[in-house]
Amino acid sequence: MAISYNALAQTLQGRSTCFFFVPKALCIKQRSRSTVVFASNDKNIIALQSKVDNLLDRIKWDEKGLAVAIAQNVDTGAVLMQGFANREALSTTITSRKATFFSRSRSTLWTKGETSNNFINVLDVYIDCDRDSIIYLGTPDGPTCHTGAETCYYTSVLDQLIDDEASGEKLASTTLYSLESIISKRKEESTVPQEGKPSWTRRLLTDDALLCSKIREEADELCRTLEDKEEVSRTASEMADVLYHAMVLLSKRDVKFEDVLEVLRKRFSQSGIEEKQSRSK
Amino acid sequence: MAISYNALAQTLQGRSTCFFFVPKALCIKQRSRSTVVFASNDKNIIALQSKVDNLLDRIKWDEKGLAVAIAQNVDTGAVLMQGFANREALSTTITSRKATFFSRSRSTLWTKGETSNNFINVLDVYIDCDRDSIIYLGTPDGPTCHTGAETCYYTSVLDQLIDDEASGEKLASTTLYSLESIISKRKEESTVPQEGKPSWTRRLLTDDALLCSKIREEADELCRTLEDKEEVSRTASEMADVLYHAMVLLSKRDVKFEDVLEVLRKRFSQSGIEEKQSRSK
Repeated sequence: MAISYNALAQTLQGRSTCFFFVPKALCIKQRSRSTVVFASNDKNIIALQSKVDNLLDRIKWDEKGLAVAIAQNVDTGAVLMQGFANREALSTTITSRKATFFSRSRSTLWTKGETSNNFINVLDVYIDCDRDSIIYLGTPDGPTCHTGAETCYYTSVLDQLIDDEASGEKLASTTLYSLESIISKRKEESTVPQEGKPSWTRRLLTDDALLCSKIREEADELCRTLEDKEEVSRTASEMADVLYHAMVLLSKRDVKFEDVLEVLRKRFSQSGIEEKQSRSK
Repeated sequence: MAISYNALAQTLQGRSTCFFFVPKALCIKQRSRSTVVFASNDKNIIALQSKVDNLLDRIKWDEKGLAVAIAQNVDTGAVLMQGFANREALSTTITSRKATFFSRSRSTLWTKGETSNNFINVLDVYIDCDRDSIIYLGTPDGPTCHTGAETCYYTSVLDQLIDDEASGEKLASTTLYSLESIISKRKEESTVPQEGKPSWTRRLLTDDALLCSKIREEADELCRTLEDKEEVSRTASEMADVLYHAMVLLSKRDVKFEDVLEVLRKRFSQSGIEEKQSRSK
């Protein structure tokens, strides 16, 4: 089995793994940047190799030597695809940081993206309580599905049951991204003359002054729930208002919520908002 | 196979399935509430039964009659657990709206929560492009893992590789919830006297006036990216600032981001923010 333990040492040294994925004790601040203390000399590489082997020994592989491997987008939480991993696929994923699976039909190892270039860059790997199910948590370079869809899960059973003619193309979206999708649809509609009273989202999308006054107003109301010690349920409700109106602004500017989360992830994995803000005070 | 198609008809009629999970064509507005047009008479129930059977026939069950079934939290996106489904488990999940699996070790059907009462209430079911992998998208009544953890995925491979003494208890969190967790840790620290300059988050957590002035300021800066037609990348960056500071306020008030998403989901599944806002204008 050809595994690059040098690459693994680099993985553990990688700046991008710090903050979110490396225990705090192993991070030291150095010129405002976090660096993992992990020398990649031969001794450490041998120790690493032994640790990876121990870890692979702990997985409960099934009678075919496989475990379920789920690839998930670290920013959006979307389940991108699901395959199976054997020992080699898991160790390759850990060392290469590219989501790698074992193809049951072709009986070969395959790295997602090896033909499409849409790799899934793995930031960490999680194992479940039974040690027979694995999550590859990472960032996709492009659409994961071979059909060009963002994820492989775009067929809703309820859609199919209700409507024989359903397109079968509705991503398994969580609440935030369902809302983003709705706002996006309103945006498309807002360019077409509509009969009747326009929806609130369409009004916001076509009136920048209204949208901005609402965002400032809702941010103020959120603050007042703290300042005036209002009921806690008001805070959740006002934050929902802030989020919804700000998401309309994002849509207006063609910014995806995923882009915002990427900014947050990168900030924290570098010097962190906290340091940035402290320095500027 | 004992399946309640009456229950399924109710599922499809259920108000909570509307907006997010039912094609728009099947929703009509009635007294400001969305109602699915789906009469549950005998004829429709027989038609439904046939549709469910057709759908079950389309799944590529493996040689043991199983497919992978992943339960995901619709609000947070967290992968809660992974099991396997056979025909009966999937049809029971569709009709009962409780995530149901087939236990390979006990060779029986089991509904998550049947002993713990921590059911996973399924809002929709998705099938992947290969039709051999299923997502149950829903809301958990409580912790999903039998250990009491929120999800079954709390063992980080990188943690284990770096530190033999790692507690092994770090949930597979996406960016937003990693940030929430960091803020929460700063909040715990903020009650203990610390040496040196406090972090920015700790300063915000202990100074309501500073926190609220920052939230108002960041909301204003977000608006100005639209008003002043600034570069689009500024919008993502300012939204990240709004989100981070607002999340500090949520933490301060013991409100989880999940609670905010629940508010948004419920609003939209009832009359929707848009209608609510339109009525108030």
